Amino acid sequence: MSLSTLLWIVLGGSAGALAFAVVLARWVLARDTGTPEMRKISDAIQEGAEAYLRRQNRTIAMLAVLVAILLAFGYGVLRQSLPTDPVSDRAMLAFYVTISFLLGALSSGIAGYMGMWVSIRTNIRVAAAATSSLNAALQTALRGGAVSGLFTVGMSILGVGGLFAMLSAFAPAGMGADLWAQKIPFLIVGYGFGASFVALFAQLGGGIYTKAADVGADLVGKVEAGIPEDDPRNPAVIADLVGDNVGDCAGRGADLFESTAAENIGAMILGVLLYQSFGVRGILFPLVIGAAGIVASIIGIMSVKAREDEDPMNALNRGFYLTTALASVAIFFICRTLLASPDAPDAWWHFFLCAMVGVATSVAFVFITQYYTEYRYRPVKAIADASLTGPATNIIMGLSVGMESTVLPVITIGIALVSSFLLGRSSGIVINGEPAGGLFGTAVATMGMLGSAGYILAMDVFGPITDNAGGIVEMSRQPESIREKTDRLDAVGNTTKALTKGYAIGSAALAAFLLFSAYLDEVQHYTSSVLHVDLSKPPVFVAALLGAMLVFWFSSLALRAVSHAAQSVITEVRRQFREKPGIMQGTDNPDYGACVDIVTKGALRAMVLPGALVVLFPIVVGVSFRAIGGDGERLGAEAVAGFLMIATVAGIMMAGFLNNGGGAWDNAKKYIETGVHGGKKSDAHKAAVVGDTVGDPFKDTAGPSLHVLIKLLSTITLVLAPLFI
Amino acid sequence: MSLSTLLWIVLGGSAGALAFAVVLARWVLARDTGTPEMRKISDAIQEGAEAYLRRQNRTIAMLAVLVAILLAFGYGVLRQSLPTDPVSDRAMLAFYVTISFLLGALSSGIAGYMGMWVSIRTNIRVAAAATSSLNAALQTALRGGAVSGLFTVGMSILGVGGLFAMLSAFAPAGMGADLWAQKIPFLIVGYGFGASFVALFAQLGGGIYTKAADVGADLVGKVEAGIPEDDPRNPAVIADLVGDNVGDCAGRGADLFESTAAENIGAMILGVLLYQSFGVRGILFPLVIGAAGIVASIIGIMSVKAREDEDPMNALNRGFYLTTALASVAIFFICRTLLASPDAPDAWWHFFLCAMVGVATSVAFVFITQYYTEYRYRPVKAIADASLTGPATNIIMGLSVGMESTVLPVITIGIALVSSFLLGRSSGIVINGEPAGGLFGTAVATMGMLGSAGYILAMDVFGPITDNAGGIVEMSRQPESIREKTDRLDAVGNTTKALTKGYAIGSAALAAFLLFSAYLDEVQHYTSSVLHVDLSKPPVFVAALLGAMLVFWFSSLALRAVSHAAQSVITEVRRQFREKPGIMQGTDNPDYGACVDIVTKGALRAMVLPGALVVLFPIVVGVSFRAIGGDGERLGAEAVAGFLMIATVAGIMMAGFLNNGGGAWDNAKKYIETGVHGGKKSDAHKAAVVGDTVGDPFKDTAGPSLHVLIKLLSTITLVLAPLFI
Repeated sequence: MSLSTLLWIVLGGSAGALAFAVVLARWVLARDTGTPEMRKISDAIQEGAEAYLRRQNRTIAMLAVLVAILLAFGYGVLRQSLPTDPVSDRAMLAFYVTISFLLGALSSGIAGYMGMWVSIRTNIRVAAAATSSLNAALQTALRGGAVSGLFTVGMSILGVGGLFAMLSAFAPAGMGADLWAQKIPFLIVGYGFGASFVALFAQLGGGIYTKAADVGADLVGKVEAGIPEDDPRNPAVIADLVGDNVGDCAGRGADLFESTAAENIGAMILGVLLYQSFGVRGILFPLVIGAAGIVASIIGIMSVKAREDEDPMNALNRGFYLTTALASVAIFFICRTLLASPDAPDAWWHFFLCAMVGVATSVAFVFITQYYTEYRYRPVKAIADASLTGPATNIIMGLSVGMESTVLPVITIGIALVSSFLLGRSSGIVINGEPAGGLFGTAVATMGMLGSAGYILAMDVFGPITDNAGGIVEMSRQPESIREKTDRLDAVGNTTKALTKGYAIGSAALAAFLLFSAYLDEVQHYTSSVLHVDLSKPPVFVAALLGAMLVFWFSSLALRAVSHAAQSVITEVRRQFREKPGIMQGTDNPDYGACVDIVTKGALRAMVLPGALVVLFPIVVGVSFRAIGGDGERLGAEAVAGFLMIATVAGIMMAGFLNNGGGAWDNAKKYIETGVHGGKKSDAHKAAVVGDTVGDPFKDTAGPSLHVLIKLLSTITLVLAPLFI
Repeated sequence: MSLSTLLWIVLGGSAGALAFAVVLARWVLARDTGTPEMRKISDAIQEGAEAYLRRQNRTIAMLAVLVAILLAFGYGVLRQSLPTDPVSDRAMLAFYVTISFLLGALSSGIAGYMGMWVSIRTNIRVAAAATSSLNAALQTALRGGAVSGLFTVGMSILGVGGLFAMLSAFAPAGMGADLWAQKIPFLIVGYGFGASFVALFAQLGGGIYTKAADVGADLVGKVEAGIPEDDPRNPAVIADLVGDNVGDCAGRGADLFESTAAENIGAMILGVLLYQSFGVRGILFPLVIGAAGIVASIIGIMSVKAREDEDPMNALNRGFYLTTALASVAIFFICRTLLASPDAPDAWWHFFLCAMVGVATSVAFVFITQYYTEYRYRPVKAIADASLTGPATNIIMGLSVGMESTVLPVITIGIALVSSFLLGRSSGIVINGEPAGGLFGTAVATMGMLGSAGYILAMDVFGPITDNAGGIVEMSRQPESIREKTDRLDAVGNTTKALTKGYAIGSAALAAFLLFSAYLDEVQHYTSSVLHVDLSKPPVFVAALLGAMLVFWFSSLALRAVSHAAQSVITEVRRQFREKPGIMQGTDNPDYGACVDIVTKGALRAMVLPGALVVLFPIVVGVSFRAIGGDGERLGAEAVAGFLMIATVAGIMMAGFLNNGGGAWDNAKKYIETGVHGGKKSDAHKAAVVGDTVGDPFKDTAGPSLHVLIKLLSTITLVLAPLFI
């Protein structure tokens, strides 16, 4: 298949996904918008969410422009050209890197904004649909979420594919199209960096926002004033609902946007290595898989339909399995077509098996996450039992469960990496007499795992949508029967949110190796010799220590940011209760806007320091170790590699600990609320509320931000590698 | 200087230290033993502690014999001899490895038992001395602690030096004494493994014991029944006091015993590398430094004297600075004598500077630990402030502080490692045309840091002694003025305990690199080629992930063990209160023995699983990756190296997080008890008690056990390296 045919498939598939997302959005917007009371609340949420996102995007845009200027300056002025540079003119190189960074940042911003724009309009329609049937509410919520999912994945593939297509038209004079196609992936690494840059701040800012509002609202509302969740008398309740949108919805969208972008570019770089065997087909292979995955996701989404009496989770699972099955079939044919090589007749099915390893990994992560976060199983029950002896034992047990929950995922990832590596290595691809397909095998496994990203993201955004729908139903005091429907959807939403986090960290872990390999490959490309990362050199080991330390430092800052911002919410709510005693009697209206404003400011202020830390730290490591090392030692590049790998390992562990620990605490509380250990208002429940509150910033701020941190470190080192050599 | 002169210095110094410890013990035992009420309580503590330690030692002895049999079988039967083996007969090799393992285990057991035997007899004498003067109580406590410190460090050096001396008399026929001296360090690595094997179980068992009793006693006593700490009506109070002895005192002794043993052997292996330049002097250099350090510690300990009105911490600090200064002077002369080499005239002072880097690191760690755990500074104050909004924010802030507290130690360790490496590399020592002193430089820095181990350990054991003395004074209802004295000493004891943990993890981190290098060196010795640890190979990366995972898993098990054992204490105390209402009125005596018995059984049962995990895990990794790898690839050895290094990195981070987080929570509670935020019985205080309780297993069970885990992994891989090749 020729380059242009492949590009047409990729661009057509992703543009089609965007078009379909628009169709879905129009379908959702055409639904009924319920009663005037519902609309009043929904309008307040919309207003708060859009105001926050505008301000957040403005802050991120300023930071991105700053980074773009530094990139242009670093590449265009500071750095000397190398003969191995993909383009010989350093101004052109600076231009390509900077422009792809800006495009990546912009696309991520647009995808996040579009997704949230639809989500906050879907909430009320789900609430209204719940007045007729469960299935109507479920379909509305999932299709609203699908707009976000399809926009995210579609924009990501369209962006990378589009950049590739544009650049392929600008081969430098005297360079053949073939050679030029091998250079392009190195020029567009900036796109992944731009995407992860935006994702980090979106996830951090949104995560801080949502949990500061949640913790603040709960601590004064539920604990001090004794009013239920989502009670309209709580001045922080709108901020809490806004938070679900800006954190869970916009944040996770940005996370998976950059996952697909960064991992596609990383896999394309590894594809360049196998050019001898597969030509340009190996380079575009990841994008084709991605395009097929979107189509499979669309079919999966449209197939979901629930009977009124069944657990809605079953309906969502059926859709997931359909998507996975369709994607697997598509991958089979893509492997057979694109990875056929006369030199290595067995290669295509070896790589197909690698992709199946990735698919199996995604399913395994779904089960493991359920085991650690659902109250049917031992871990959550143990936390509930420990609540009987008070908050301290609840916390100790929750931390213990969180730490333990890293064991099975690591074993899964280990098996996936080693087996896809061995499958790839035995594929028959040989370069310079050595088996060479191992790393590409791990890349294909990642592609297999990410094939269902569109569906997964739709399920994820389903979570905040149903959460908000439940809030709207509660606050507008709808009848019990309707609340019961939204509660059922909300419970499913909690599960899907936990699953996505498991999926996101699993794919980040699997992709981590692909991204290191791309980095090492890039260093090799620039210096024409293989870089080994030898931890037995003290400076490399010290860089590794610094990598682990960064993860702890970042997590510390993220947790503290939530704590600080929540305290300002608590102070404000207490002030309103004190100054307007009518609020509690229901005779006076609370000032929701004041709380929204305080959280907005607090979150934006708090996200800058940890974000800047992550961006600057690898640069400091690379530049300072380059200075310590001797000439030709490439100590800077090697130290950065050690730093990156151990930061990734530590990040995977810490994110698993935080996500699952937080999820387990949440459900231990819910388990007690079902009547176990004395039920609501018992001492055990009070202890479980403490654990749940501690778990909030774990699972929704620090944990998800670490997913992005891992990939941001990879993309930033990919972009800046030439500066460390 | 000849081999025999050096051995005489080492053996004389360490035997002298043991003799002096006996003199000190006799001095302490000759002190007054107070009133009959005091003796009654003290007897109960003695009985419980000795009964526990006997049972713990029996369990550990059985496990050690099992491991010894496996070692003998693995080396003597399973493994084929290699031409590079230090002795050609594999039965002899098995004999040497096994016997040094058993000797290491036995010596560690004896040192721990002796130290605790004296400590539990010192408690009551400190209580009695407090009736006369603060200085008398301080000196009694410190000298009682010094018995433990001197026994530990003395036995460790005597053991390694004695083994070396004995083996040097048994050179195989036809091998010169010089060549044989270079083989011996590889034969006695088992001693370090034996020591760390015992240390792991002692620290784990003791740590679980002490915190299960503490948490259990506090949750029912302070929180539920509302009686003060150390109240004689609490049935768990004796178990709590016993715990201070078996955990803090015996556990930390075993920890530092194995630190000195393992690090001396590791440094001796690196000394073998420099045999060309320094001969046998380079091999025995670490032991000579150790012997000099003990003498400096003895002088430091005997110099301590406090004015009645001063902060006792100042007196202890003066002693520490004197010890450090004397050790530095001694190191100067030892470097000039032993590391003089005509080929490298500047080497001796380069290495002297390396040792000073180690000394400076120990001082830096003391300051950093104080900053994060004392309430004069920001971190602890922030936790106290967060307690105002309840237990959840207290926990979030405490976790955040704990994570942040890893930053400065990592930077310190990084600077120390890189600077001592560069100092060593530029020392002028050259092997095969390459500068070769770098790794030995990091080893010398470790030696410099460990020079004051005897003094540090005396200060550490001072902690549980004064804690127990306070308990005895409280329970025997002594006058307020005496309690005030023991309270002052107890407060100082809390600080010294925190400092020792900082010191222990700092020295473990610095030594980690030395121990990896010894491992790589050993693999090189056996395979005659350099082993690089290349993380960019997927299997090595997966092994690294497994290393980090082991740390999380182990911490999870340690935390859970405390939680479980504490719950059985709580159940028992509640039962006693319910069945004997007279206890609370003071008309009936609680059954202390029942609680002691329950904790003993619980701790012994709970320590086996995490301990076995740590011992088996590296073996599984080594053997299974050897099976995956191709012939001559040495994948097993390389994967184990990656596993070991990342487990070490993760262990350093996690231990710092747990130790400092726990210490900070403890002192945030104490800070509030000084009257801040409403003082005792305020809501903020209740929130702070939750944090303190969570911190207990952090800082006294999981954290300290991780110090030992790090070193056990190093010694086990050193001993088993030949099996992975």
